[in-house]
Amino acid sequence: MERRESKVLLDQINNPSDLKQLSLSQLETLAGEIRTFLIEQLSKTGGHLAPNLGVVELTIALHYLFDSPKDKFIFDVGHQSYVHKILTGRKDRFDTLRKYKGLCGFVKRDESEHDVWEAGHSSTSLSAAMGMALARDLKGEKNKVVAVIGDGALTGGMALEAMNHIGHEKPNLMVILNDNEMSIAPNVGAIHNYLSKIRSDKKYLKAKEEAQYLLKKIPAIGGKLAKTAEKLKDSVKYLLMSGMLFEEFGFTYIGPVDGHDLNKLLDTLKQAENIQGPVLVHVLTVKGKGYSPAEQDSHKWHGISPYKIESGKVLKAADAPPTYTEVFGSTLIELAEQDDRIVAITPAMPGGSGLMEFASKFPNRMFDVGIAEQHAATLSGALAIEGMKPVFAVYSTFLQRAYDQVVHDICRQNLNVIFAIDRAGFVGADGETHQGVYDIAYLRHIPNMVLMMPKDENELRHMMKTAAEYDGGPIAIRYPRMNGKGVEMDQYASLQPIPIGKWEILKDGNDAVILAVGPMMDLAMEASKLLAKEGISIQVVNARFIKPLDEEMLGEIYEKFNAVITIEEGSVLGGFGSAVLEHYALHRMNDISVEPLGVTDRFIEHGSTQEQRQEVGLTIDNIVNVIKNKVPLQVKRA
Amino acid sequence: MERRESKVLLDQINNPSDLKQLSLSQLETLAGEIRTFLIEQLSKTGGHLAPNLGVVELTIALHYLFDSPKDKFIFDVGHQSYVHKILTGRKDRFDTLRKYKGLCGFVKRDESEHDVWEAGHSSTSLSAAMGMALARDLKGEKNKVVAVIGDGALTGGMALEAMNHIGHEKPNLMVILNDNEMSIAPNVGAIHNYLSKIRSDKKYLKAKEEAQYLLKKIPAIGGKLAKTAEKLKDSVKYLLMSGMLFEEFGFTYIGPVDGHDLNKLLDTLKQAENIQGPVLVHVLTVKGKGYSPAEQDSHKWHGISPYKIESGKVLKAADAPPTYTEVFGSTLIELAEQDDRIVAITPAMPGGSGLMEFASKFPNRMFDVGIAEQHAATLSGALAIEGMKPVFAVYSTFLQRAYDQVVHDICRQNLNVIFAIDRAGFVGADGETHQGVYDIAYLRHIPNMVLMMPKDENELRHMMKTAAEYDGGPIAIRYPRMNGKGVEMDQYASLQPIPIGKWEILKDGNDAVILAVGPMMDLAMEASKLLAKEGISIQVVNARFIKPLDEEMLGEIYEKFNAVITIEEGSVLGGFGSAVLEHYALHRMNDISVEPLGVTDRFIEHGSTQEQRQEVGLTIDNIVNVIKNKVPLQVKRA
Repeated sequence: MERRESKVLLDQINNPSDLKQLSLSQLETLAGEIRTFLIEQLSKTGGHLAPNLGVVELTIALHYLFDSPKDKFIFDVGHQSYVHKILTGRKDRFDTLRKYKGLCGFVKRDESEHDVWEAGHSSTSLSAAMGMALARDLKGEKNKVVAVIGDGALTGGMALEAMNHIGHEKPNLMVILNDNEMSIAPNVGAIHNYLSKIRSDKKYLKAKEEAQYLLKKIPAIGGKLAKTAEKLKDSVKYLLMSGMLFEEFGFTYIGPVDGHDLNKLLDTLKQAENIQGPVLVHVLTVKGKGYSPAEQDSHKWHGISPYKIESGKVLKAADAPPTYTEVFGSTLIELAEQDDRIVAITPAMPGGSGLMEFASKFPNRMFDVGIAEQHAATLSGALAIEGMKPVFAVYSTFLQRAYDQVVHDICRQNLNVIFAIDRAGFVGADGETHQGVYDIAYLRHIPNMVLMMPKDENELRHMMKTAAEYDGGPIAIRYPRMNGKGVEMDQYASLQPIPIGKWEILKDGNDAVILAVGPMMDLAMEASKLLAKEGISIQVVNARFIKPLDEEMLGEIYEKFNAVITIEEGSVLGGFGSAVLEHYALHRMNDISVEPLGVTDRFIEHGSTQEQRQEVGLTIDNIVNVIKNKVPLQVKRA
Repeated sequence: MERRESKVLLDQINNPSDLKQLSLSQLETLAGEIRTFLIEQLSKTGGHLAPNLGVVELTIALHYLFDSPKDKFIFDVGHQSYVHKILTGRKDRFDTLRKYKGLCGFVKRDESEHDVWEAGHSSTSLSAAMGMALARDLKGEKNKVVAVIGDGALTGGMALEAMNHIGHEKPNLMVILNDNEMSIAPNVGAIHNYLSKIRSDKKYLKAKEEAQYLLKKIPAIGGKLAKTAEKLKDSVKYLLMSGMLFEEFGFTYIGPVDGHDLNKLLDTLKQAENIQGPVLVHVLTVKGKGYSPAEQDSHKWHGISPYKIESGKVLKAADAPPTYTEVFGSTLIELAEQDDRIVAITPAMPGGSGLMEFASKFPNRMFDVGIAEQHAATLSGALAIEGMKPVFAVYSTFLQRAYDQVVHDICRQNLNVIFAIDRAGFVGADGETHQGVYDIAYLRHIPNMVLMMPKDENELRHMMKTAAEYDGGPIAIRYPRMNGKGVEMDQYASLQPIPIGKWEILKDGNDAVILAVGPMMDLAMEASKLLAKEGISIQVVNARFIKPLDEEMLGEIYEKFNAVITIEEGSVLGGFGSAVLEHYALHRMNDISVEPLGVTDRFIEHGSTQEQRQEVGLTIDNIVNVIKNKVPLQVKRA
């Protein structure tokens, strides 16, 4: 294939200054080489292919025109920073992309001086750019600050909060609106519709000329009508400048410009560079540009596993059991068929949350609200107050955005909202920014909340039934990013609600008890088998309710055991183990040793889930060691 | 005074249907009577006077035209719902306003069927209205849904997220933009500037007529220019319809209308009622309308203590020591005079956070970003990354809005942001929605965070010095809503950084130890005195670092004591006591009894702080009882 032919130019680029020597046609050639490089590399490692193919010319233009790291580039989310990484001396590390101790899939400050702001969640770039611009002005410095934000991220509330502030203070600052009509899924919302209107205005320049001709037909008028005439002419800006929405926010709007035409892009950015105050450059790009499978289905190719370049076929482990996400999606359909109060809410993740089929079966009962977790939560609350059964499907890490709304609008009003918290626990290659390790700690202390985690994909179905029939307030199910275990799946008709707050003893034992949350159950069972060989008898409990605790069983455990080990793929501080400790302390049940295993006060970088578990000691071996250190324990008090 | 004369009409209004019998002039008289009622009642109880005086006519108009509770009124924040409460049968309970077990200062569902949505935090009303509108449509019902939102609340990110969704789905739904140019403080931001432009257009209607005349001067043109001519005429909408920003978001915009002219208001609302899809009615009101002290300083009169009606003088306890807020404000100025990297960030609370004097001394170093906690947090992070020392001053309850940004943008990047967390602990009359009882639980589990609370106002000064000199990442000081104790205040020159993670023994003892957080210290000291009389010797520790813990002292305590009592005005679940439990568990220090006192998994309603403490057992008597139940404890293990 042509795209594989050469990397003559790319081989010479080791930092942005190398770029500045190239001619326009060389830059264009370089763009092609970078595309080839990305397509080849990511076919082996996987990664965010489509977003990066969309910003090849844009990133080249930025590094060509501006002077990084003195000038600051802030990439919203940051998964579209691969081209930036390639141009800033990291192209040789792409074989380690998103691997343990390898190149991060997002912007990472300790990788390069050119990485000046880290993200991972959407819509932070304008706030970051504003902070850098204000600091620059306070320090009397002169550098440029450029934020690159997608049209999807623009609808996140905090981006609009930032626009409101920027438009008020009016510092010199450039926003590149990377408009590809997608966030991960196709975008929704009024702002998207507005941008589409601008995009579709193919005859933009022509209309501008014609309007100027027409304007001349309005006679020059003095006296008391002069001001109105002036305003009328002003109002024509609405036609002449398509980005009136941004102008109202206090930005100078420039665009739209074709983001794959390097010549025009450079011209436009040069024009923008000379404007005082905040300027928004509207750049039209195509996600997946230059690789037809990705262009044709950029939703699928947003983040992709290794694939065959020629066919675009994703390499998959054969015959894996369904993921928890898939089980959630199919079970939700079954529930919704029986109960027309059930509606689904997603903040721009219909695919990732397993809701595509639900959306096509129940288009009126599916609300994709855009990247807007805060709104999604409160919307769910209001739907519940009016008798619906809203299912807010959201990743653990993204629900962090709606913490206040969960506290105030849902739990405080004790509303029947079902939270389907996906990606709970380690997430692998996305790393730090996407780990679902805090949701237990930030949800557990909220009054009225019920919080569950299933031991396997079949129990997830029963928990969904439990949630659907529960009428006592908010109820959340957290489940991991992984394939199920392949257990036998119960038919819908035989799904049973689990009594709220009732745990399950999976294995009896006498020397110590393990309280395991979710998939940690498997580690607990394996550890107990190894320990049995050494004569240590372990009881294993499926602590499927993180809140409320099974107080009765905790009482029985207190009577029978000296040693309790809790295991969770989440923060130990404030986590499930902490809940057990609190329970015993509040009930003045002392003299029982509780040892919590989990993530201890640290951020966990990208890698495989196995490597991440290894790093924090969530392994069978470590569990065995912990228990061997505890057993036999001191004499029983009774 | 005239306004006290009579309540003839008001006495007859016991529910909204009574209102519907009145003539326009009677409604106007009623408005005056309600104002008199509010001014008199609130002079005794205190409360949100200015916001409610601003919405008298608006609330009358809503209840006159629509049919509550079938039609749903959603008041953003809800502190402007007093008139609504008066009209819905609750006027006789106003002497209990914001008192323990009395009338809530916000919308409260269990008070009345007319209260359909609770709030307390800003900017949720559009999401709530959207949820109710969608539920209505799914159920095939026909009621109206009306959100009343201030121009300040409109800049909150989630309100804009909701507009984006509403403008996309376009359900029938009415938004009343209650534009008084204030949130609590005067509003800032691009949207505010935009609204001001509309407001200042006094000759709005005249300009509209003149523009239509001018438009006729454009010749009718056929052929290829016809479409452009049409667009040009469309573009004049920008002049004719002042609310183009809202139109771009997919709303029909109507207004602006004088919110104190009942006749015009009713006409406008009737017009809006018949429009399909979302409609935004822009209502201009005056905060404090009808009571000149409140009109003249609506910032001060937003929420007010009891006052003398004639003079507008607030009744105050004489010679109280400065509040923690005041000490924060004055100390920050001293620090900023020495260190020009210090800047202050507030999300629309410059007064409440004690920053008014800072703002006038350092106008360039003060950023009021509007009601935008998410943006404020990330902005602070970016200022820090560029070498500034941002002080993000925010109430405990409002910081909940920025949880994700604190995790991701500040702690994950380990940036030197100082959090000044005001209103930590019980807040009294604002109640449930404003209690600062979760910040320990939602901040403590975030890696890199340092969290302190001072025992008195002088220690607050030392902690601020500590934070200003700390260079290791994010550091937070939480302090309560109360006057200081009147302790001697150290001069700036003698302020000393406190070693990070070092607690302070305030009183030695032998039988048990109390670890007290912040003002709980006083209860602990008093309890220890009472216990001393009974021969029980208590050690009292000022646990001024909630994170990191003083591990060395915890070790010493473990060696010396069997019983530890922790006391905090915050959630026990995930709180400070929980941190102590975790510490001992993680270090396998068993056989020590830790009893955490605090708020146990419940929301706490309005009342005095004393009553709130009583309700959860944070009293000297209860501490004494708890300790007497524990001491003497079982034999020491050593």
